[in-house]
Amino acid sequence: MRVGFIGLGNMGQAMARNLIRAGHQLVLYNRTRERADALAKEGAEVADSPATAAKQEVAITMLADDNALQSVIFGPNGIIQGMQPGGMHVSMSTISPALSQRLSAAHRERGQRYLAAPVFGRPEAAAAGKLTIVAAGPPDAVAKAKPLFDVLGERTFEVSEEPQHANLIKISGNFLIACVIESLGEVFALSRKAGLDPQKPFDVFSKTLFNAPVYKIYGPQIIEGKFSPPGFKLPLGLKDIRLMYAAADQLAVPMPFANVVHDNFLSAIANGHGDLDWSALALVAEERAGVTGGRAA
Amino acid sequence: MRVGFIGLGNMGQAMARNLIRAGHQLVLYNRTRERADALAKEGAEVADSPATAAKQEVAITMLADDNALQSVIFGPNGIIQGMQPGGMHVSMSTISPALSQRLSAAHRERGQRYLAAPVFGRPEAAAAGKLTIVAAGPPDAVAKAKPLFDVLGERTFEVSEEPQHANLIKISGNFLIACVIESLGEVFALSRKAGLDPQKPFDVFSKTLFNAPVYKIYGPQIIEGKFSPPGFKLPLGLKDIRLMYAAADQLAVPMPFANVVHDNFLSAIANGHGDLDWSALALVAEERAGVTGGRAA
Amino acid sequence: MRVGFIGLGNMGQAMARNLIRAGHQLVLYNRTRERADALAKEGAEVADSPATAAKQEVAITMLADDNALQSVIFGPNGIIQGMQPGGMHVSMSTISPALSQRLSAAHRERGQRYLAAPVFGRPEAAAAGKLTIVAAGPPDAVAKAKPLFDVLGERTFEVSEEPQHANLIKISGNFLIACVIESLGEVFALSRKAGLDPQKPFDVFSKTLFNAPVYKIYGPQIIEGKFSPPGFKLPLGLKDIRLMYAAADQLAVPMPFANVVHDNFLSAIANGHGDLDWSALALVAEERAGVTGGRAA
Amino acid sequence: MRVGFIGLGNMGQAMARNLIRAGHQLVLYNRTRERADALAKEGAEVADSPATAAKQEVAITMLADDNALQSVIFGPNGIIQGMQPGGMHVSMSTISPALSQRLSAAHRERGQRYLAAPVFGRPEAAAAGKLTIVAAGPPDAVAKAKPLFDVLGERTFEVSEEPQHANLIKISGNFLIACVIESLGEVFALSRKAGLDPQKPFDVFSKTLFNAPVYKIYGPQIIEGKFSPPGFKLPLGLKDIRLMYAAADQLAVPMPFANVVHDNFLSAIANGHGDLDWSALALVAEERAGVTGGRAA
Repeated sequence: MRVGFIGLGNMGQAMARNLIRAGHQLVLYNRTRERADALAKEGAEVADSPATAAKQEVAITMLADDNALQSVIFGPNGIIQGMQPGGMHVSMSTISPALSQRLSAAHRERGQRYLAAPVFGRPEAAAAGKLTIVAAGPPDAVAKAKPLFDVLGERTFEVSEEPQHANLIKISGNFLIACVIESLGEVFALSRKAGLDPQKPFDVFSKTLFNAPVYKIYGPQIIEGKFSPPGFKLPLGLKDIRLMYAAADQLAVPMPFANVVHDNFLSAIANGHGDLDWSALALVAEERAGVTGGRAA
Repeated sequence: MRVGFIGLGNMGQAMARNLIRAGHQLVLYNRTRERADALAKEGAEVADSPATAAKQEVAITMLADDNALQSVIFGPNGIIQGMQPGGMHVSMSTISPALSQRLSAAHRERGQRYLAAPVFGRPEAAAAGKLTIVAAGPPDAVAKAKPLFDVLGERTFEVSEEPQHANLIKISGNFLIACVIESLGEVFALSRKAGLDPQKPFDVFSKTLFNAPVYKIYGPQIIEGKFSPPGFKLPLGLKDIRLMYAAADQLAVPMPFANVVHDNFLSAIANGHGDLDWSALALVAEERAGVTGGRAA
Repeated sequence: MRVGFIGLGNMGQAMARNLIRAGHQLVLYNRTRERADALAKEGAEVADSPATAAKQEVAITMLADDNALQSVIFGPNGIIQGMQPGGMHVSMSTISPALSQRLSAAHRERGQRYLAAPVFGRPEAAAAGKLTIVAAGPPDAVAKAKPLFDVLGERTFEVSEEPQHANLIKISGNFLIACVIESLGEVFALSRKAGLDPQKPFDVFSKTLFNAPVYKIYGPQIIEGKFSPPGFKLPLGLKDIRLMYAAADQLAVPMPFANVVHDNFLSAIANGHGDLDWSALALVAEERAGVTGGRAA
Repeated sequence: MRVGFIGLGNMGQAMARNLIRAGHQLVLYNRTRERADALAKEGAEVADSPATAAKQEVAITMLADDNALQSVIFGPNGIIQGMQPGGMHVSMSTISPALSQRLSAAHRERGQRYLAAPVFGRPEAAAAGKLTIVAAGPPDAVAKAKPLFDVLGERTFEVSEEPQHANLIKISGNFLIACVIESLGEVFALSRKAGLDPQKPFDVFSKTLFNAPVYKIYGPQIIEGKFSPPGFKLPLGLKDIRLMYAAADQLAVPMPFANVVHDNFLSAIANGHGDLDWSALALVAEERAGVTGGRAA
């Protein structure tokens, strides 16, 4: 398939490479062209604008946030201009449901199709083609994109005909992860202050009721204080909680756990932890309790 | 082994029965004698006071809360009076770390041993001998109780020489469960209000990062609104959060998630949900958001 | 002075009328022209665009929110186009500090002056010329606007040379009022549930330590449940808390009280109280506690 | 009147002295006798037990907390033993409504009268006879104590026939003060981080809507960082919030502001501010925001 691919950050680069290797013909666009040129050597074309990249059968976007996505779509030589009627936009960034809904309408007006397909997984999972993809949009559009998803991820969930629902699930998932980090942070701070090695309760929990990847990934990081190098930087976690907050605000759903997590992300950043992994959220509970065990030297 | 067993509620009864079946000689005490008499037919003696029951090699207590335990220990004809020097008290109730610490000292003063071994698991798990046991206390005491634990549970974690650490882990575990319920409640309320069936995000989460028993048990209950009959009544959940709060207060550890959960338990009770399962905590998020999907008719 | 006045809502209309009566020559603009025409009969001109109104010596804006203000400034025939170099914009709306800072830069680039002067006071205070004005900006600009402020308000505080500081103070003030409403709501709900008429604690507090207008205005409203007709509608209170939240987020300042208030505003709206006065925020504490005393029939 | 006076801390000593000077015959009891002896020189008798002090017409108690009061009442040679049928206990300590209710019942059983009359005011106000007294109990008992209240305070509010209602009002008042401190702390931290001297917003607020003693007392302390010497130590503030929390818990009233304040008191203590005035609660908002302006050198 001829696929425009816009946005070659750590995630996008790995994803585009997998599509190239699977035999798709990619037309790449990235704001800083070097990243596109590097990939071109592996067998892809480079476009000089989002509009050009978007002239293909399918255009995939993988950008940092709402603003970045909006500028490649509505900005000069943007996707919305370049895409043909009948074209299809597969939006894989973590963006707000509100923007996704707006894009859906904008494409529909122009006879184009729009699909939201945000992903779970870090760059290594992207490189290994093992992302989890949450897809929502018109069923025929999802079906058309399915061969691409099969290359990019190990599992695709088709969740709704409303694209923004996929985005809601993505940010809800990140919110749930943040809740796990915060709850472990509170429990471990309490353990430390009681003179109990937090590894002990963690063993009990992670081997019984809480035997899930999310606990096994974050628990040891927090206990050992290994927040660097970051797998997912703390300000990115804050960004996603802001998306959650905005969705909750718009729909009038009080989410007190989101507030706690938001405050603690701010506090972490205000106290100099902005370069750490987002699991350093757990440091805030320790600092407020006056214990300092959880920080690797 | 000759074992005094004090407290024959739903949990205690099932546990005592398993010990009898495994060949131990039990001396039972329960405030309302009928429950002891019923078990006696299966081959146990009945004591007329906690003191008498506690005269055995080992005395196990399994009571509802701090007050109930204190009264069989320090009350008239209490355990502390009946137990011989060299006797051993295995405290399996969910009680405060503070009381556990106090009991430990009280027994030590009298040349008796004290062990905390609270359990995870509902009455069915107790009946099946599949509890998870968290044991803390002097290693020789734990070793002596081990054969009993092997009858009662499928797994015993030995976590510390300080008995109160086991109690801290028990209440921390229940706190973490409550955090899962609350976080799912918030996310599902948001989904419903966005017009998205909460089963959709739950599928994604529970099949990927959150693939753990705690999510699989509580997620469907909340989505289907099956809060009755209760497996663990909401006021019991509140009781355990109060224990968490008291421990956090004593150790000066701010636990904002515990506050949210506490407020929502109060709100659930104040609004008539006190007879439901503690997963009905999730109803509060729905009610605050003005959606009512999560309550089975 | 020749004064462009843009935005003739309940507040703006009363303010413009006072300026007319004080002898200033007003050029009015309002999105729905009828409101301008009505005032014109009292001796003012009507402009057909914000740009025209802004051609005067001074242009005052009094609009509902950031969006409304942005559209009269940057929209077609907007203020920024109409205003002459040397012109001065006095921005009296309750807007975000961030927008105020952006406007300040935009005007400066064009050789125009910008002043923020948000007000405290309801429409009746505006009509009586008894507003409290919080002014910030270049001192000479503030001095030039002072005669206008003297007509509009009974007191002007000059707080900073940075315009956005005035906006920060305005939203901080509304936040503090919301905190008073929430704290009284919690205390009164507790009183009611304890069987104590909330008038009793209120008497004690308001006659001693809390003898301030804010308590005397909102306390009786909450006790009597007089939330209608609204003096300041609940969604407007939410709007201002959102501005507070955005400022706190941008500056990385955790504000847990703002979170509580925000959640409770959402909850009030989600449960059908959106047409009431913002003091109905106090209903949420009652509803969560399962008491219903504070709502007038 | 012959008055037993039990509890001669900073508050009690000043109060007892005023009663002596007004011509009442006092029989003093204090755990450390020196404080009683010192006052005796001014014309009072010293009792060697609470029971003896309580044999008078009226016994006033002024103790630190629930535990201290319980031990002089129910302990060996306690008030409950010494007091005659027909005697009257005026309980002026800041205690829990629950204890007050229990004392009321205990005295009634013995044909004694019980009155709660907690006070607002610091030791200087006590010395000057300018306390605010909140009295609740049987009207004839309140009437009998009135002449004593007139000596001790400048104003007495008679609020209810249920003694515990006075205690509820007392702790609610301290809660409201803590809410003022917290809300100012958040606003001032935001101001500082925005580069705005917090004196500016405070001027605006305290001269307009928030023109009440509570703002005027605590605002400058927070702005100037004058938390030492403490007028009311931070752990005492925490103690009263705990009483509030216990009352809210018992009555099932969610009080989210109380949670925030409680967490921040814990955090202040855990981070070494336990010797400061309770207005140092405001430091927590600063610390979380990473600003340090509000602490005097």
